[in-house]
Parts: sequence; structure tokens; C-alpha cells
Amino acid sequence: MFSIQKKLAGKLGRVGLLKTGHGSIETPAFVTVGTKATVKALTPRQVKETGSQVVLSNTYHLYLEPGEKIIKQGGGLGKFMGWDGPTMTDSGGFQVFSLGGKGSSKIASSKQHSNILQNVRMFPGEEQTAPLVKIDEDGVTFKSYKDGSAHRFTPERSIEIQHAIGADIIFAFDECTSPHAGKEYQREAMDRTHRWAGRCLKRHQQLTTDNQQPKPMLFGIVQGGRFQNLRKESARTIGEMDFDGFGIGGSFDKEDMGNAVRWVNELLPEEKPRHLLGIGEPTDLFEAVENGCDLFDCVAPTRQARTGSLYTKHGRFNIENAQYRNDFAPLEEGCGCYTCLHFTRAYLAHLFHSGEILANTLASIHNVYFIVQLVKKMRQGILEETFFEHKREFLDSYKK
Amino acid sequence: MFSIQKKLAGKLGRVGLLKTGHGSIETPAFVTVGTKATVKALTPRQVKETGSQVVLSNTYHLYLEPGEKIIKQGGGLGKFMGWDGPTMTDSGGFQVFSLGGKGSSKIASSKQHSNILQNVRMFPGEEQTAPLVKIDEDGVTFKSYKDGSAHRFTPERSIEIQHAIGADIIFAFDECTSPHAGKEYQREAMDRTHRWAGRCLKRHQQLTTDNQQPKPMLFGIVQGGRFQNLRKESARTIGEMDFDGFGIGGSFDKEDMGNAVRWVNELLPEEKPRHLLGIGEPTDLFEAVENGCDLFDCVAPTRQARTGSLYTKHGRFNIENAQYRNDFAPLEEGCGCYTCLHFTRAYLAHLFHSGEILANTLASIHNVYFIVQLVKKMRQGILEETFFEHKREFLDSYKK
Repeated sequence: MFSIQKKLAGKLGRVGLLKTGHGSIETPAFVTVGTKATVKALTPRQVKETGSQVVLSNTYHLYLEPGEKIIKQGGGLGKFMGWDGPTMTDSGGFQVFSLGGKGSSKIASSKQHSNILQNVRMFPGEEQTAPLVKIDEDGVTFKSYKDGSAHRFTPERSIEIQHAIGADIIFAFDECTSPHAGKEYQREAMDRTHRWAGRCLKRHQQLTTDNQQPKPMLFGIVQGGRFQNLRKESARTIGEMDFDGFGIGGSFDKEDMGNAVRWVNELLPEEKPRHLLGIGEPTDLFEAVENGCDLFDCVAPTRQARTGSLYTKHGRFNIENAQYRNDFAPLEEGCGCYTCLHFTRAYLAHLFHSGEILANTLASIHNVYFIVQLVKKMRQGILEETFFEHKREFLDSYKK
Repeated sequence: MFSIQKKLAGKLGRVGLLKTGHGSIETPAFVTVGTKATVKALTPRQVKETGSQVVLSNTYHLYLEPGEKIIKQGGGLGKFMGWDGPTMTDSGGFQVFSLGGKGSSKIASSKQHSNILQNVRMFPGEEQTAPLVKIDEDGVTFKSYKDGSAHRFTPERSIEIQHAIGADIIFAFDECTSPHAGKEYQREAMDRTHRWAGRCLKRHQQLTTDNQQPKPMLFGIVQGGRFQNLRKESARTIGEMDFDGFGIGGSFDKEDMGNAVRWVNELLPEEKPRHLLGIGEPTDLFEAVENGCDLFDCVAPTRQARTGSLYTKHGRFNIENAQYRNDFAPLEEGCGCYTCLHFTRAYLAHLFHSGEILANTLASIHNVYFIVQLVKKMRQGILEETFFEHKREFLDSYKK
């Protein structure tokens, strides 16, 4: 399913090809996020034109709306959303643990602890009073961010939902810890994630029938937080299991992300693909590619776009600033995206100031194109042995 | 500039070709509305793919934001918004008289008369206390719907702004009256509109230089409300002036729209194009085409789309109704729009229920395509002498 075509000399980085039931992904590749079975503000055709090869949706959101049954009836995620390329779903773990608390705090806003909880992303271990996300060995009980109704995910249930949604690549259900979790809690959560990984794999194997074509791929998730020995232990444990690939989840010390990823990727089986979850900052992407990650997903390009924050090789700028009202240059000189080829900064500024829907679309096209093409260039850099020149040139120019 | 290719036997209807500085328009044609230099939620390419030939923007809105100077600097309306086909601007008259009052009433919401005025579309003659739109012989003073600031349009100013915006077809500045205006006020307003028409024409001729290529076309506007003798008088008066074409504005008795249009079009010079302003209901379009109108614009297709109300040959339905959640048919069987070719009702229902931006885009594509193609079929019906069969078949099926 995954073949390595070339390696980055002296490093873990590599160029590969990942075959899925809906076409191949040339890696390294940025995975465009379509949380609720839509890349926000973009048609599938517009997504394709950014160069995006694969779209990742969110199991937690799709389970709540429209429900996995509707998606299955509609022919599975790709067909349902009109995307004919490869698809992924994450396991819902991150959202259960983050939004599960957030949603409950909103709904409990009249209660005494609401002031503390509001606008705080809650993780287990950070609760002030009653737990909002209840974890036990078997699974997690959480509340819907939409209406406060109670729901329960177990590793098996997550896999069942993901099989119904029907993406090409699915993820094991893991426990996401707070970035502030101490080592003791981190170990506890990691050990549970490892036990859950085994249950996910078992349920996945039960649900995958011999004559099923194409078969979904299941990626296990490495956890361990900021702790080197936990990360290594997690990589060894998950790496030995019969997964089709791996996700690297949880939080890192940002300054040391390259090293943290390296600890993990040195131990994971080389011949299987690795997905760094939720990472999309350009400078982080260089570190991740150099240190052996093949896939990355992040909501940042589209989310930033909708606030008017646009990527360029010199860093991000906000189109709503007054100076762009009569700036008739494209968003970025030399950019080949649909937006830059047809519209000016002044026009985008007008759309944003007027609150026009098209603002979201044109800005998202540009940002997704920027990130997708950036990772494509890294791939090209490995193939042509110019990766480090490309990296140096980019980092010299890009201001975070 | 306008040539008639075929006439509808025994009626005023005709098929024509209107040449503009940015390509020709095959008439009858539905003009897609892009109020603020964007067809809401659609890229220009998506607009083109609905079959739309021409886009109409709004002088009042563009004057307030981003301002006509920015658009001129950006190369004129079409270039500014990335639309390479023909463009039009209306004169701003309708919005000055309707939104001018509305905006002021919102801003005056703390004042004693606010309860009366809120959510009421105010026209001169309907004012409860102080006038919110002040009309004098020279022009109109009104308040911005955005911030309550005072502005003034005169016929000359409207033409100057429209020349700066730079559309291919522009309109004379007229006074729009309330549908409830009595005959006396209607006459007064109509006479003023006729005097203003002369001033618009004069200013337009001053601004149009000999070597200007392409030259904008100016359409005069026929008023007269619901009154047959006023409509005829207005058609004769405006029809004798040196306009490139005509708009038919104001309000009609809906049941009698076909007749009202006929009174006017029997008198207007046959060889010039006629634009029925603000009409887009399918049944009305048949009446208008049959009775000699060539162009029509209406916000309804896009505005309805954003509320989930979708056109089909059986009438409109709302995609948010529960029954569509698991309906995997296209919005309309047999429809050739991008949305119907790629997505199901269940998917659109999901997007609307989730509040996704893409809902607006996909619904707007369908509704604009529906109306544009409907008028194209009327054109084809005149050419092939099947207009009345097509009309009868449509009206038998379509429920208002």
C-alpha cells in the first residue's frame, strides 16, 4: 500500500506513494481538513484545484450530524461529499476530549462553575468541579457540543462509526491529554491508549471482510505528550501492532517538535506511512517532513482564511488592514491559485469589509493552495536533493 | 448595438442580440444580480457555468462600499470582480428610496417613532414623522444604511458614479415610489423622473468621449406605477429620448403584470432593448418575455437559495425540511447544474443543518442555473416557435 521512492540523505525524511481505495497520495502531502464532510467554503472541485490529494473529516462531528448512517446510505464519505479522491477520518478522540468539555460548559452556563469553564478548552485533569468528560477503562462518556445530550464512545464504537462513514484511512481511538498534563497522568492515558489501540485493531479486523474492496486502512496513534521516554515507549508499542500506518498525536514543545517527531519516527516501522495530526504551520511542516512524517492535517489554512489572514512566503498578513483597500496586486505575487490569478487584494478587502460569503471562498482557496504547494515543493526538494536549500530559503523569508 | 432576430407571432416577444463592450447578450436573458460586485457565494466562474451572460451590480451599494473610485482604479466593475462578460449597474434609485428610509429607521431606533418604522421599507409618502429620504427637484438626500451618514444623489451624480464604476450598461436615476402611492403622488414622481431622465442623458453625453471604447450604454427608466395612462405617458416620454435602451421600473399589480408591460412595450421603440427591473418569478418571466421584454434581473434566485428554498419545475421546496435528510436524489432530477450533477438532497440538507458556507454556494448555483436556463428555453421557444407549448407545460407543472 505504501512505497518509498527516495530518502532524504542523513535524515528520516522520504518521498513515498500511498495507495488507497480512491487513488494514490504522493507523500509528503498536506491533508486538507473537511471537518463536517465539507472543506469549509470550497466545492470539491475547488479543493482539487488547490492540489489537495486527500480530505480528512471528523468522526465526532459526523456522528453528531448528519450521523454515520446517513453517510453510509449516501455511499460513504467521499461519494456523500462529492470528493472522488482519498478520504480519511480521525477517530473523534481529540474532539471528544476537547469539545466534550467545552460543549458541556456552554450548556451548564447557568451553573456556578460556568465562569471558570467558559471559553476554556477542557481536558480531563483540568476539571474544576464535576467531570464533563468521563473516562473509564471501557471508553468515554461526553456531551454533544450542539445540544448537551449524552453520548458514549468506546474504541469499538469509534471504529464501527468510522467503518460506516467509510473513509479510506481511519484512526484508532486514543485519549488526548491536555498540554498541561503531568507525567503521571500522561503515562496513565498513554497506557490506556495502547490498550484501546488493540481493541480498535480487533474490531477493525472483525469489520473488514475478506471480499471487501477497497479495504479501509487503520492507523494507530502514538501518544506520550512532551516526554521523550513516553513517546519512545508509545512508538515501540504501537509500532509493533498490525496497523497500516501511524498517527502521531498529542502535544509537543513547539520549539522541539522536530526532535519529538524524530524520537518517534526512528522507532516506527520505516515501511509504513506516518501522519502527524493537527500540524500545519509552515515552519513546523519542514521539521516534520525532514524528520520522517508523510502526512499532516490542520484546520489552520481554512480557519485563518475566514478571518482574512492570508499566507505568503513572507508570512501571514490580514487583508482587512486599511492599506489593502486600494492595493491592486494579487494576494501573493507569482502565486498560481485561482484567487491570485483573477482577483486583487483590493477586491478581497472589499469582500471582507462587506461581509460577503465569497471572501471565505477566495481566501480559503489561496491558503489551502499555499500550504499544499509548500509540501509538494518539499517533496520535490527531496526528489531533486534540494530540500535543505528550499528550507533555508523559505525560513529566511517567512516571518511567523 | 441591438438586433432582433425573430419575433413571437402575434405578440411583442422577440429574440435578439445585444452587443456590449464585453461581449454579446443573447436575449431574452436573465441578468444575474451581484449587488456588491459579487454574486453572493459564487465565483465568477461558477456564475458563468450557470449560463449567466451578464451581471448587474448596485450603484448605491458600491458607492457606499468600496466607493466608485476604488472600482475605477481596479479597472472598472468587470475587471474588479473578475467577471469578463457584460456588466450593468442600476442607478441606485430603488435603494436610495427603500434602504435610505430603512437604514435611517434602524439608526433612529431609540427615538419615539422607531416602533413604527422598524422593519418597514420606507418610501416617500409613507413617512410617519420626519422625512428620512428628502426629495427635491434637484435630487435626493438620504442616509447610509451602514452608518447613518448623510449622502446626496442627483441625476448627474448617479451618472458620474456609474461612469466611474464602468459597467457596459447603466441606468438613468429615477424616483421609485411606494406600491401604495396614490395617483397624484405617482404623477408628481413620474414627471420628476422624466425631468431627471433628461439630465441623466445630458451628463452621460458629456462624460462619454468620442474616442472612448467601449462606450457605455444608458437605459432610461419608465415609471408610472399601477396606472395605465401614466405608464403610457411615461413610455412615450422616455421612449422619445435618446437612450440606448429602456428599463421598466416600479410596481405593478402582480396579476396584471403582463398587461402593464404590454402597455409600455407597445409604445417603446421596437428596435431598442427593454429591461424589466427586479422581476424574477418564473411565471412573471413568461409574461414579460411574451410581452416584449428582453432582460430581467432579480435577487430572488440567490436570496432564496441562501434560505434553502430551491427551484424545481414543480415549484420551490425547502431543503431544510426533515424529509430531505435521507433523500439521495439530486435537487432536481434531470437538472444539469454542477450541484445536481455532484450532490444529493441529503448532502445539501446536511450542509444547511450544519450552517456550512458551502450550502449557500451549492444552492445558489442551482437556483441561478434554473432561472437562467428557463429564460434560455423561452428564447429557444421563440426561435423554434414552441414558446406557448413550453409556457403551458411549465405553468401546468409549476406551483407558485
